[in-house]
Amino acid sequence: MPGSVFGEFLTVATFGESHGTAVGVVVDGVPAGLELSVDDVQRELDRRRPGQSGVTSARRESDRAELLSGVFEGKTTGTPVAIVIRNEEHRSSDYERFRDAFRPGHADWTYHAKYGVRDWRGGGRSSGRETAARVAAGAVARKILAVGGITVRGYAREIAGVQAQRVDLEEVERNPVRSPDPDAAPVMERAIAEAKEAGDSVGGVVEVVADGVPAGLGDPVFDKLEALLAHALMSVGAVRGFEVGDGFATARMRGSAFNDELAAEGGRVRSRTNHAGGVLGGISTGERLVVRCAVRPPASIARSQRTVNERGDAVEIAVGGRHDPCIVPRAVPVLEAMVALVLADRLLAQKAIAAPPGRPAG
Amino acid sequence: MPGSVFGEFLTVATFGESHGTAVGVVVDGVPAGLELSVDDVQRELDRRRPGQSGVTSARRESDRAELLSGVFEGKTTGTPVAIVIRNEEHRSSDYERFRDAFRPGHADWTYHAKYGVRDWRGGGRSSGRETAARVAAGAVARKILAVGGITVRGYAREIAGVQAQRVDLEEVERNPVRSPDPDAAPVMERAIAEAKEAGDSVGGVVEVVADGVPAGLGDPVFDKLEALLAHALMSVGAVRGFEVGDGFATARMRGSAFNDELAAEGGRVRSRTNHAGGVLGGISTGERLVVRCAVRPPASIARSQRTVNERGDAVEIAVGGRHDPCIVPRAVPVLEAMVALVLADRLLAQKAIAAPPGRPAG
Amino acid sequence: MPGSVFGEFLTVATFGESHGTAVGVVVDGVPAGLELSVDDVQRELDRRRPGQSGVTSARRESDRAELLSGVFEGKTTGTPVAIVIRNEEHRSSDYERFRDAFRPGHADWTYHAKYGVRDWRGGGRSSGRETAARVAAGAVARKILAVGGITVRGYAREIAGVQAQRVDLEEVERNPVRSPDPDAAPVMERAIAEAKEAGDSVGGVVEVVADGVPAGLGDPVFDKLEALLAHALMSVGAVRGFEVGDGFATARMRGSAFNDELAAEGGRVRSRTNHAGGVLGGISTGERLVVRCAVRPPASIARSQRTVNERGDAVEIAVGGRHDPCIVPRAVPVLEAMVALVLADRLLAQKAIAAPPGRPAG
Amino acid sequence: MPGSVFGEFLTVATFGESHGTAVGVVVDGVPAGLELSVDDVQRELDRRRPGQSGVTSARRESDRAELLSGVFEGKTTGTPVAIVIRNEEHRSSDYERFRDAFRPGHADWTYHAKYGVRDWRGGGRSSGRETAARVAAGAVARKILAVGGITVRGYAREIAGVQAQRVDLEEVERNPVRSPDPDAAPVMERAIAEAKEAGDSVGGVVEVVADGVPAGLGDPVFDKLEALLAHALMSVGAVRGFEVGDGFATARMRGSAFNDELAAEGGRVRSRTNHAGGVLGGISTGERLVVRCAVRPPASIARSQRTVNERGDAVEIAVGGRHDPCIVPRAVPVLEAMVALVLADRLLAQKAIAAPPGRPAG
Repeated sequence: MPGSVFGEFLTVATFGESHGTAVGVVVDGVPAGLELSVDDVQRELDRRRPGQSGVTSARRESDRAELLSGVFEGKTTGTPVAIVIRNEEHRSSDYERFRDAFRPGHADWTYHAKYGVRDWRGGGRSSGRETAARVAAGAVARKILAVGGITVRGYAREIAGVQAQRVDLEEVERNPVRSPDPDAAPVMERAIAEAKEAGDSVGGVVEVVADGVPAGLGDPVFDKLEALLAHALMSVGAVRGFEVGDGFATARMRGSAFNDELAAEGGRVRSRTNHAGGVLGGISTGERLVVRCAVRPPASIARSQRTVNERGDAVEIAVGGRHDPCIVPRAVPVLEAMVALVLADRLLAQKAIAAPPGRPAG
Repeated sequence: MPGSVFGEFLTVATFGESHGTAVGVVVDGVPAGLELSVDDVQRELDRRRPGQSGVTSARRESDRAELLSGVFEGKTTGTPVAIVIRNEEHRSSDYERFRDAFRPGHADWTYHAKYGVRDWRGGGRSSGRETAARVAAGAVARKILAVGGITVRGYAREIAGVQAQRVDLEEVERNPVRSPDPDAAPVMERAIAEAKEAGDSVGGVVEVVADGVPAGLGDPVFDKLEALLAHALMSVGAVRGFEVGDGFATARMRGSAFNDELAAEGGRVRSRTNHAGGVLGGISTGERLVVRCAVRPPASIARSQRTVNERGDAVEIAVGGRHDPCIVPRAVPVLEAMVALVLADRLLAQKAIAAPPGRPAG
Repeated sequence: MPGSVFGEFLTVATFGESHGTAVGVVVDGVPAGLELSVDDVQRELDRRRPGQSGVTSARRESDRAELLSGVFEGKTTGTPVAIVIRNEEHRSSDYERFRDAFRPGHADWTYHAKYGVRDWRGGGRSSGRETAARVAAGAVARKILAVGGITVRGYAREIAGVQAQRVDLEEVERNPVRSPDPDAAPVMERAIAEAKEAGDSVGGVVEVVADGVPAGLGDPVFDKLEALLAHALMSVGAVRGFEVGDGFATARMRGSAFNDELAAEGGRVRSRTNHAGGVLGGISTGERLVVRCAVRPPASIARSQRTVNERGDAVEIAVGGRHDPCIVPRAVPVLEAMVALVLADRLLAQKAIAAPPGRPAG
Repeated sequence: MPGSVFGEFLTVATFGESHGTAVGVVVDGVPAGLELSVDDVQRELDRRRPGQSGVTSARRESDRAELLSGVFEGKTTGTPVAIVIRNEEHRSSDYERFRDAFRPGHADWTYHAKYGVRDWRGGGRSSGRETAARVAAGAVARKILAVGGITVRGYAREIAGVQAQRVDLEEVERNPVRSPDPDAAPVMERAIAEAKEAGDSVGGVVEVVADGVPAGLGDPVFDKLEALLAHALMSVGAVRGFEVGDGFATARMRGSAFNDELAAEGGRVRSRTNHAGGVLGGISTGERLVVRCAVRPPASIARSQRTVNERGDAVEIAVGGRHDPCIVPRAVPVLEAMVALVLADRLLAQKAIAAPPGRPAG
């Protein structure tokens, strides 16, 4: 499959450039009979949209979703669900000056190297705007997960080096940086503001957790659950690192510390600890799924930087404009959406091979 | 595709359990006309095989590859290359006592939850033994990369907290821990030995670099090069984290520090620094590709651990036996193989869409 | 992949129901740098659209294509091309009476059996309307083929038992039944009119030929060119049979009659005859590609038929309305589109594995 | 996926050349808990093997299957099932004289055009020998179908123009031509013998039926059941045409004759007739599935034919040797296997999206 198609059982095909006519997605493989409305999609898009607070881009985009197919009388029909989000604010002129210069830290040079031509208006396809389509698709995936009682939630674990000291999921949507620790939130906000004033940008770490994931999801050896999650999350432009459970810390742990001991609890096998983050051998354990992503500082900064243009001339550019000084808060719903897509995909995969109750497999 | 099939253009289908008849792989999509012999495969398998030194498992497996198809008169024919490695040493009896207990940190419980039945002999499919098939496939991928002048090399960046202070690729194969720093090597070895004596195990970090990668590989938005690499590397059982370039460190960097400035050099666009690790916007930049994996400590340890059996009874087990106290050195060729498979796959993908010289695309 | 996604290298994801908001397609894998305009798409859609003549449905749908992405400054950028065609005429009320009855020969019962729910308005997704998206995608595929000098053309080989006695490709678009034989055309037209008057419908045979196909396309053993073409063409609702070259007639031929003898001609290997229809061993021979499809009579007929409704009651229904009494003429551009999609897909596939001039493969 | 990989949920990757070391297959996606032994596979292989009677090739190949993985204590474990069949009789020297000549009707020229190199020993990968791997895979698929009560059976509907006048499934394995009509069998045999004496070969038509197929299998719009079956069956080397139900005859039928009227019968929706052959709108109806394939006369004939060699010289060759004068009887188990693989694949696909009893979908 080409690069804008994702998922095996629940497949999304996204399209659209930042300054083109629209972005959107076709979601295929959605089981029939699920309640789905445009509001379900809009709710998630609203969490990703710019202009939500002082820490995000000042761009105003209403990002209205339109549902073109796959739903009849309020329910999915088993046919593809197409969602289109028209681009409203076309200020391509902002980008005229970068028309032939490769902005440092952006994909300008690599797109040029790959395709020979590129849509220079706001990064075109390489813009973060494509993630709106992911969020729309994620809203559909959440409906599939909801049937199984699975929820997916993310938050800013760290911004500009400021760490959340505790995780209270109720707090996340109450502060503009999506910190699960209300005390850390204002410190994070300040760090972002300082970077912005300095004409710079900052990164952070997003943690996503999923509750209610049954044991048994994920398909060894190549489609281990953590491998599919890593693929999904690392495909988001700003993400430079991924870990599951104790992740990189396990490199310095001993086996006796890492191994989660097992116990029977209410007829279920449970682990006392969760160093594995809910996945072992590529298959979900039934414990909380925990993954983390390193989110890099945005490439667009007001400071002057040296680069070259298409003719190879050395030039200096300052990108400035209405860019996010930190993408972490807006990345949260995007990364949640990707986790939801993977889990819904594997839930369907598992149904395919599982034995129906009271019958042998097959 | 089910879970034991990987790759789009260069596809591998692996099979085999640790104590079954054989492990192996079918590699399809191999271009015709490449020189390939069983020795090319054997050379790589020998690097992965146990019993190489005091820091690895004492098991003796000769791991002889047999080439069943796809090569005629020393060259690939464009048809599938099948490679089989017979299992030699079947000491299933070693595992009788774990027959119905779920070993902590292993995939025993998750396989049971997923499939209902499981091959309890040495972990079956969840054993690290399946990686022999990956290494065999990687040897084929390397032949494709060699035509394009691409090399892939890995090493132990860190073991048990001991870091390599410098990277000298020539040193890697000269010490048993595959350290690129000859001074760090004996310290790493000692740390492994200490853990083993304590009935325990240790982890580390493997870094893999690829040189000669042309700009333009990787397919946004979902098949970004780093996403495919993350998928490939996180699918190796012991890996719990992945990062590209500066990875998790970027979460604490400012944009001005992360962005690699560009310059023209000998008619090519080059970056002065390589914080991106050779990938930007999901497409290779033409600079050295740099990825890192967190490798967890092996689950099999001599120390006693609490767990449950299939009936839910609490039991204590000590796994002991001839297990690797640290898998990092043997993981190096496996992770190299996975990187080689992804790069070869994307090299073919890029040929599909690239315009031939002097002609428009298509 | 779910059922509305097709193609490996050039992938189309279609969506839309006959009486929903829109039908459309996302085409991914399109090489960059091809000239593509909405007119290229519209031209093909106009050939499929109803209301073209007395032999087709009287419905009026302008079928205006809108290009949402993937084209910049008149050229493809390598990113997905999304095309939407809004549904204009919603006469869902026409279908109220079939709301719970399963129309004979239609997919009403099977959709009900599969999905539990169904969009009963005009067949929903099972309507021939979905083929508009295929034609739009085919227009994109033709641009890829054009670079390689490949053309794809179809025509009515037979309608209601009336056969074209000769094939003049210039004649096809000059008569409403798309007969390549101008003398057969009025006879075919009359046969359709007679069936319509009798409240009935008729079928026929469409032949599609492709010229300029280079030797070497198609991928044994499962993706033989004829297998992919069969998949593509049999996926069009009205098609019940497929053959390549001499097809079913070969069942009664002797080997000596079927085998095309080879000769060198102008430095190329050519066959004197073309019983193979341009494909041997699953790979194109370089001769004209010739395939044929059996197109069944449309299911919607004015005559009364017995059936059951969702409650299992026996009912009688007459579908009538503005339906095509013969779908063959409008099927021609649809089947051409499917052939174009397969050929473009395999052209890209072949580029992936082919050796560049003067270099070994890989 | 490259060309030797087939299926989405139940995926087979086959390998092997006619005169190489072995042919074989890896079957992935097999549900756990199915009883499977090497005998299940051997039984089907024995039906395909040469040397069964006077109408088939005189070659003696015992075609012993070896099961390498995926089965433990007599049951499938959910991991890949690998099966290898070693090639025994290597008479490559028989083919020395065709080393650089392109045999008419064979894939010699097209493989040369595609790959640049080719294994000239007995056709290499293009030999019918690769179908042994399909039959082995089909034996696994049958185990999945058996759980659902689905059976797949084929027979020679016609050989050399001699048609079976009736279908008695019990008769098929009782005569060497696999005729379902015992009276037609000796006539067919004679026709084959006559062609052989004349140094020639004959074709025929194979019909495959599946009973017990539940309504609901097949995935519109591109993975319609008949489209997947067409893909599968047209991928068998000797097949040149495919039809479902009344197939090509529908081109001359009126809608009123083609439409199967529906009735409620014992709480199920049934059709009185089965012109549709068990598939409507791409989804199984619950009636008997009926497909037919045109099988061409084998290309290898004793008669002299004109062709060219790799240097472009005109040459005359007579292939002769121990070839099948008619491949129809041996094609029956191969085509059955392909139908079984498609049905098992779609059975799993349908489980993925179907609602569990008493719960909404998802």
